[in-house]
Amino acid sequence: MLSRLSLNQITTQRWSLREAVEGCARAGIPSIGVWRDKLAEAGLDQAVRLVRDAGLHVSSVCRGGMFPAASAAERQVRIDDNRRAVDEAAALGADVLLLVCGPAPDKDIGAARQMVREGIAALLPYAKERGVKLGVEPLHPMFAAERSVIVTLAEANALIEAFDSPFLGLLADVYHIWWDPDLDAQIARAAGRIFGFHVSDWLVPTPDLLLGRGMIGDGAIDIRRIRAMVDAAGYAGPIEVEIFNRALWDTPGDDVLARLCERFVMCV
Amino acid sequence: MLSRLSLNQITTQRWSLREAVEGCARAGIPSIGVWRDKLAEAGLDQAVRLVRDAGLHVSSVCRGGMFPAASAAERQVRIDDNRRAVDEAAALGADVLLLVCGPAPDKDIGAARQMVREGIAALLPYAKERGVKLGVEPLHPMFAAERSVIVTLAEANALIEAFDSPFLGLLADVYHIWWDPDLDAQIARAAGRIFGFHVSDWLVPTPDLLLGRGMIGDGAIDIRRIRAMVDAAGYAGPIEVEIFNRALWDTPGDDVLARLCERFVMCV
Repeated sequence: MLSRLSLNQITTQRWSLREAVEGCARAGIPSIGVWRDKLAEAGLDQAVRLVRDAGLHVSSVCRGGMFPAASAAERQVRIDDNRRAVDEAAALGADVLLLVCGPAPDKDIGAARQMVREGIAALLPYAKERGVKLGVEPLHPMFAAERSVIVTLAEANALIEAFDSPFLGLLADVYHIWWDPDLDAQIARAAGRIFGFHVSDWLVPTPDLLLGRGMIGDGAIDIRRIRAMVDAAGYAGPIEVEIFNRALWDTPGDDVLARLCERFVMCV
Repeated sequence: MLSRLSLNQITTQRWSLREAVEGCARAGIPSIGVWRDKLAEAGLDQAVRLVRDAGLHVSSVCRGGMFPAASAAERQVRIDDNRRAVDEAAALGADVLLLVCGPAPDKDIGAARQMVREGIAALLPYAKERGVKLGVEPLHPMFAAERSVIVTLAEANALIEAFDSPFLGLLADVYHIWWDPDLDAQIARAAGRIFGFHVSDWLVPTPDLLLGRGMIGDGAIDIRRIRAMVDAAGYAGPIEVEIFNRALWDTPGDDVLARLCERFVMCV
């Protein structure tokens, strides 16, 4: 029942990569989504050994992106950093390098969207060369000013179709997309191009914009229905549980994983 | 310069209707958006006298809507309440009764959207009879679980077009729609059917989901660009400043109005 479950490291944010890997092993979770700050902390070679020795599959590296910037020089700095992220994803054999595309440097959201297109155009050949898939993750519109100007499935799909590459696809996260009146049609449109699927829940009320996500099953999202759509669109890979929640971070990691496994079976 | 300015009462939430009316008169603000709780507090007849005697125009009544509910009986209660809101808007000669369409009673957001359609169908004939225009306000998707399942301009436009009535139109609020990649096209699509326009700003960071809106000019939204679109779509009515912000509520009302008038000229 847990064969498709993956632990995204942000869910147990206080754990180092070693602790998360060991936690997954204890809980019988077969995959992990790795964050780059945890990777840097462990060192890449050591990280590769850790996940290999544990027999863990790496479902994603979080994250690349953040393409828009005020100057061409700064945009190049971002591309260089994205290339390093591609290298890391390659070393770990990750299914996908997740792209959080970045906010606008000013009030011109249209220009920032153009910078995202240019950033992906600059990065994609290198990703292909290294055999790394890039996953565009449309974020919830409440993150438009701070994290990503790509905030709808329609926009992400259009971006992905424009490049028409087997190395560029969609990262679908229920938290970011559940509200979309066009959800069914846009997930179907992405068929064959879905590179990852994340789950968490929308709490009512939501205690915090960034750190207020809920344990699966605790909120308003019909996760099972969205999972069925994503399955129907041909996605058969890992399902990452990615919960940004401070209260959860303050809970012992093994307890979080136990609850998460239980809820995954019940609600996903 | 202030001829199109309207004070939405939520901006000066601690003021009674009488205080808000007097504040507008002192500040030279010609219109007001009235909230129903303030109306109930003042009494409808007294409220009508207050705004008439001050020579104020009522740009909107906030708010009708909240159509979805678990049972048919409860949905009828909502319709009855909406009819009273129509009566109040008629008595005040308001440009529009604003509709915040309501959240789903369960996880079935699609069924709730159908209840919104049915609710509007039940209400619209009465609004027409009383000569009151209804304005569908798409809310920001972060309010999908608690305030409205209608969260995009496209969805609101489709809903409005389906009824094709001069008594049903769009209420466009920059706070709710600024992030939309389809913004320009959807505002143009609503040409001739825009019944109201609200402004505030998106703060970075946003301190609170509900009460974290910013004074115009303090945030990420290119308000002037959106106002130009709305103007180009033929809207020539009042522009309401509607700011849900606790810090602003704690500021003396006259000071808020002075800042608001200054910013309106600069940023809208």
